[in-house]
Amino acid sequence: MSRFLKEQYQSLEAYTPGEQPRDMQYIKLNTNESPYPPAPSVVEAMTGEQVELLRLYSDPTAKHLKERLAGLYGVEPENIFVSNGSDEVLNFAFMAFGGNGAAFPDISYGFYEVYADLYGIQAEKILLEADFSIDYRKYCGKNKMVVIANPNAPTGMTIPVSQIEEILKTNPNSLVLIDEAYVDFGGESCLPLIARYDNLLMTRTFSKSRCLAGGRLGYAFANPAIIADLEKIKYSTNPYNINRLTLLLGEKTVDAESYYLEKCAEIQKTRAWTAEQLEGLGFTVLPSSANFLFAKTDKMDGGELYRKLKERGILVRHFTNPRICQFNRITIGTMEQMAVLVGTLKEVLYENV
Amino acid sequence: MSRFLKEQYQSLEAYTPGEQPRDMQYIKLNTNESPYPPAPSVVEAMTGEQVELLRLYSDPTAKHLKERLAGLYGVEPENIFVSNGSDEVLNFAFMAFGGNGAAFPDISYGFYEVYADLYGIQAEKILLEADFSIDYRKYCGKNKMVVIANPNAPTGMTIPVSQIEEILKTNPNSLVLIDEAYVDFGGESCLPLIARYDNLLMTRTFSKSRCLAGGRLGYAFANPAIIADLEKIKYSTNPYNINRLTLLLGEKTVDAESYYLEKCAEIQKTRAWTAEQLEGLGFTVLPSSANFLFAKTDKMDGGELYRKLKERGILVRHFTNPRICQFNRITIGTMEQMAVLVGTLKEVLYENV
Repeated sequence: MSRFLKEQYQSLEAYTPGEQPRDMQYIKLNTNESPYPPAPSVVEAMTGEQVELLRLYSDPTAKHLKERLAGLYGVEPENIFVSNGSDEVLNFAFMAFGGNGAAFPDISYGFYEVYADLYGIQAEKILLEADFSIDYRKYCGKNKMVVIANPNAPTGMTIPVSQIEEILKTNPNSLVLIDEAYVDFGGESCLPLIARYDNLLMTRTFSKSRCLAGGRLGYAFANPAIIADLEKIKYSTNPYNINRLTLLLGEKTVDAESYYLEKCAEIQKTRAWTAEQLEGLGFTVLPSSANFLFAKTDKMDGGELYRKLKERGILVRHFTNPRICQFNRITIGTMEQMAVLVGTLKEVLYENV
Repeated sequence: MSRFLKEQYQSLEAYTPGEQPRDMQYIKLNTNESPYPPAPSVVEAMTGEQVELLRLYSDPTAKHLKERLAGLYGVEPENIFVSNGSDEVLNFAFMAFGGNGAAFPDISYGFYEVYADLYGIQAEKILLEADFSIDYRKYCGKNKMVVIANPNAPTGMTIPVSQIEEILKTNPNSLVLIDEAYVDFGGESCLPLIARYDNLLMTRTFSKSRCLAGGRLGYAFANPAIIADLEKIKYSTNPYNINRLTLLLGEKTVDAESYYLEKCAEIQKTRAWTAEQLEGLGFTVLPSSANFLFAKTDKMDGGELYRKLKERGILVRHFTNPRICQFNRITIGTMEQMAVLVGTLKEVLYENV
């Protein structure tokens, strides 16, 4: 830390991204990336000519991408904010709308707490129920920004849109932020509520279901006034926030919708198979609508299981929070990768007995 | 504006990027982009295989790029912060280090003022001298964050590193931020001072001399404690801030140094020719060490000249600030583009007389 850092940031604890070790080639099931490449038409769009055009700035209005997304999702371009990953929308949202404090589940995307700390926002962490579900009634009438990931991470569990609507109705003067990073793997989207609730902000990402984690592309849906606020923050921090090629890849991705629907279906199939296998091995597996499973076994401590898998070349994500430290979050990879995982788990859990 | 926007941002005036009109094909001399594409070896690095790897997150530590930059510039990786454009470093620096207020020239990169407003930082704008030079003595002993672009924008003028050293010496308890976005076109870098002054932060960009404006890649040099602070802010906002392919292109760019030195020399040659031509047409041209010229003529109002050029397919940058509204900032393009500019100026200024 330097002598110059503003006092309010001195005790800040930053977010810890999933590890990216380089000591060996792992089966990487720890950061919820897609095991599939972007669609062939997306890859082919990256011509030498496009790369040469990197000498020019990207379009800060992201006009074409907004139009494409608007067409696909049946909203207006004015309902869309395009960002450098959905983390950027979350960052801007906490900055812009967190004035009265924020409420979110105690077990959720770890970054919410970091953003609250960063902006000096009073954070109320509402305990998940014993079964890790969200009781929506605990978020009603909060009169502060409510943030819910749906599906939630790292549990993968969802809450019905009808319950989100109750949260929206009972918090008319606060923003309700629904993080739909994982919605394409079986969740139910709030999108139909956008036209009816001016306090709803939904975030989405190309990182998971659109196989572009390294592209850094996210977006948000909301009414035009909220979008205008987000644009204002963007134009006051980094107007050229998105890579020029990424905007193009985003457009091509929207055009290749059927490829991605197919891959999402594939991941759901692999998830069902993997859950069944894990349960067969004695794991408790939470019901997941995301591209990962959250699972624990009585046979081995969560941290130990994580380490034993890592030694054997499989990376999963382990959290030290005592409430979930017996679990590991396992990204759904290809069927081949999951078969290796299941084989390795058998070895680790049973063959030393 | 929504009902939810935090009060402090309600009156914020965002930065206005240079226009990117799409109504016709312009000779684009308005946003200081390079007229040259990235080096062939950079373009070739973007293989289909690399594009497919976009399914994976980028390395948030930017390890390889930091190592490459450290090697090229003779510093340690710990002296380097890598960012989503140098605007991001500027944003983080104002956020982290602007606690005691900030001082910068009244005529400079317009974003400094926006950042100061955004973070509620008391901004002291120090008037440039009548000849648009910076009197370094006015920045000594300020006891607040000092921000100077060297070369300055939109003037293109430099101040000697020996004078920056005086500013550093007389502000031992405040950060001095030197924005070297344009240094590669004939400026003098502060880099040798990094080892001696722990209050120096320098920003650099791949957008101008490295022909990657659309790639979104900037970096900073400073002592490791300041770099650690910037990393902390990054890991508290958007750890995966840079596109995976951009990191690769950045590495390849460092490897292709000789190509870029050649292009910078070319731009300096074209700049000298253009300045001579403009002076021949009666323009006052400020002495530029950047990839643009700042020029005015008594024969036509600056705003009118901007509009007449735009009508004829040439975009330059005009600022409405009364002190510089007679000037236009003209990016140095190819020799062919500048010949068209000079021909068009003759037409606009003389042929209607």
